[in-house]
Amino acid sequence: MPKLLGKLVSVDEAVGKLASVLNEKIIDELRIVSSNIWDSNGLILAEDFTARIDQPIYDRSAVDGYAVISSDTTGASPLNPVVLRVKGYMSPGMKPGDISISSGEAVEITTGAPLPLGADAVVMFEDTSRRGDYVEIYKPVASGANVSRRGEDYRRGELLVPQHTLLKPWHLAIIASSGVRDVEVYEKMRIGIIVSGNELLEPGTRYVEGRIYNSTGVLVKNYLDNISFVETKYYGVFPDKRGVLENILFKALSENHLVVTTGGTGVSDEDVIKDIVGNHGEWVFRGVAMRPGRPTSAAIVNDKLVIMLSGYPVAAWTGLEAIVNPAIYSAFKIDPPGRPVVRGIITRRTPNTIGYRSYIRVHIRRGNNNKYYIEPYMLKGSGVLSSLVKTNGYIILYEDIEGYEEGDEVEAYLYT
Amino acid sequence: MPKLLGKLVSVDEAVGKLASVLNEKIIDELRIVSSNIWDSNGLILAEDFTARIDQPIYDRSAVDGYAVISSDTTGASPLNPVVLRVKGYMSPGMKPGDISISSGEAVEITTGAPLPLGADAVVMFEDTSRRGDYVEIYKPVASGANVSRRGEDYRRGELLVPQHTLLKPWHLAIIASSGVRDVEVYEKMRIGIIVSGNELLEPGTRYVEGRIYNSTGVLVKNYLDNISFVETKYYGVFPDKRGVLENILFKALSENHLVVTTGGTGVSDEDVIKDIVGNHGEWVFRGVAMRPGRPTSAAIVNDKLVIMLSGYPVAAWTGLEAIVNPAIYSAFKIDPPGRPVVRGIITRRTPNTIGYRSYIRVHIRRGNNNKYYIEPYMLKGSGVLSSLVKTNGYIILYEDIEGYEEGDEVEAYLYT
Repeated sequence: MPKLLGKLVSVDEAVGKLASVLNEKIIDELRIVSSNIWDSNGLILAEDFTARIDQPIYDRSAVDGYAVISSDTTGASPLNPVVLRVKGYMSPGMKPGDISISSGEAVEITTGAPLPLGADAVVMFEDTSRRGDYVEIYKPVASGANVSRRGEDYRRGELLVPQHTLLKPWHLAIIASSGVRDVEVYEKMRIGIIVSGNELLEPGTRYVEGRIYNSTGVLVKNYLDNISFVETKYYGVFPDKRGVLENILFKALSENHLVVTTGGTGVSDEDVIKDIVGNHGEWVFRGVAMRPGRPTSAAIVNDKLVIMLSGYPVAAWTGLEAIVNPAIYSAFKIDPPGRPVVRGIITRRTPNTIGYRSYIRVHIRRGNNNKYYIEPYMLKGSGVLSSLVKTNGYIILYEDIEGYEEGDEVEAYLYT
Repeated sequence: MPKLLGKLVSVDEAVGKLASVLNEKIIDELRIVSSNIWDSNGLILAEDFTARIDQPIYDRSAVDGYAVISSDTTGASPLNPVVLRVKGYMSPGMKPGDISISSGEAVEITTGAPLPLGADAVVMFEDTSRRGDYVEIYKPVASGANVSRRGEDYRRGELLVPQHTLLKPWHLAIIASSGVRDVEVYEKMRIGIIVSGNELLEPGTRYVEGRIYNSTGVLVKNYLDNISFVETKYYGVFPDKRGVLENILFKALSENHLVVTTGGTGVSDEDVIKDIVGNHGEWVFRGVAMRPGRPTSAAIVNDKLVIMLSGYPVAAWTGLEAIVNPAIYSAFKIDPPGRPVVRGIITRRTPNTIGYRSYIRVHIRRGNNNKYYIEPYMLKGSGVLSSLVKTNGYIILYEDIEGYEEGDEVEAYLYT
């Protein structure tokens, strides 16, 4: 028999419970695969990556100039230059042993080239003057001056990129710099998407009187596609019939790491998904104290995770933004991508119900005085898609506040 | 003969010039293709999308309850309920004409169902009590109460998503809600990537003494892959030989909308890309007053755009973040994605050269007092990849400031 929680959880509890189920049930199930660094942006590293070499692998010149033995340059000045014999030219790609110098000698060198054997510093071009085979040095340099020391960037064996890092271009670049092309990453988390609703038609099909087009499924799939380490599979629209939904849910569960459904979480007679979960599963949570998106639920069915979102697009979006997205990142202990924040003045009284967390779509605009104004969108219906399209961000009213008064300073998050 | 500008442009000038070349030369060249809304996330809309229908297409119930004729409910109260005969049940997917009511009648209705003919309001379940075929109404409702009016979300013919919108999940959802599956979008902007440098080895190949592994190319490709409407093609590492580079550049230009090169923009003898541009093209700008990334340049070659980045990974990243990324978005008049901003206290004096814009990698951490501290990273070398990996954001020192003093409050941008 399923545990029917009956009571709403808070947004934070919902994220926490979901992240912990994802962490326990899903991450271990993800295969670890070899991935080419050229195409691994946004994947999650499955190994601790340690440096294979010292970087730089030799002492290298950090400037264009002349490699010297620093003690040769003591006392050099424009009036009293030190004159050194130029023994050759070093460019990137050459080896330190290609040239070696002893006291009285210098080597012309470009940025990035290894220091010739014997040299311990570089004098910048600006502080020299070339005279045929000789160079005048106008400034003394200390040992190590203008040199990138071997291992200065990192040392062989050093942990460069820890396991569970969301791979960004610079992580891949540092792995490349160590000479490695293939790394171990987690395969993408496969999420199946099922839309339920007798009234739904797929976009692109001829209108049938009384029906409405499926927009929530489109929103959910495209939202989840934005998560770089997720791969979605859309199963289609299904009528609210227990047998039909049971079949497709079991199929989707067997083909994916988790399944997201939309619709079927309300209180009306048609809501059969909750009955399926009631018979075959265990609730992780059932309903969240938030607005919109109150029916957002999660359950374990056949030992796999099912997340149920509202059939209303704005409520589904809130479930994704407030709960699903943060939980998916948190499962790997990765911070979810931050939303840019704007502080501004709220233009209208905006009430909240104590105990609920409310997500209010807003239009953020810059006033002539360079202050930002945050205008809550009035049409609140969770089916009103234009409220997402005509706004550019949202504010969060946390559980312990009664609301904001006109003129209050608040923080708004930009859609990204 | 090419115009050799000789003088550095500012970051803002560089972005402006690049955006304007991209806008003039590239956007018109992009083919307009039909794209399925299920897979169009992050593409750019090439048409003004107008609503095909009213949304909702009928007056719909916004709650679960009973559809009524509002004037029937006048004076209703718990002590003095109005009793109406329940004529049937309406659920989503039904048509308004499926049931019609006259005075004294009501229809049980669920959220989203069309109002039956004759009804003009809905009484919520909480304000009613069912007695067999009759329902007691405890509260009067005004005409339109708890009803989503036809066209309330949007009206047929209304502009829903303007041309050049970067398509987000909610844009695709509102297009879907209007019944449309395929929209006109711009094909992806194809960017060819060429890496030059005699000293470079590809990651995954055996180390050769004196060489260094190509990390900048990996960084550039993965950075550009992050732009949802860009498709990259990597051509490989090529020696700094004029003939070789000329051939591969012309090939890449013919296969892409623009080409990004790394390396070959310094001042040493090996720098041949600038000579190729000098002979076959015209500079858009040559060098930018910024640090790192000063050699960042752009030119028109064979009537196509070439952007030249430094061969040093951190300098290349700065060129991408400060110039290439904002210019690509601006060309479509789209705001580049915002970086989350953190205000905090800088922990160390950080000087700037007046006239230059400096990008300093920083580590942002939260102190015990809940304040943020922003720690500039000391190893400044633009080849030092660990400076990007060990930091979590950057600060910008604009051209007109001499620097920050320890303890100054500054804004830092998080890497995204």
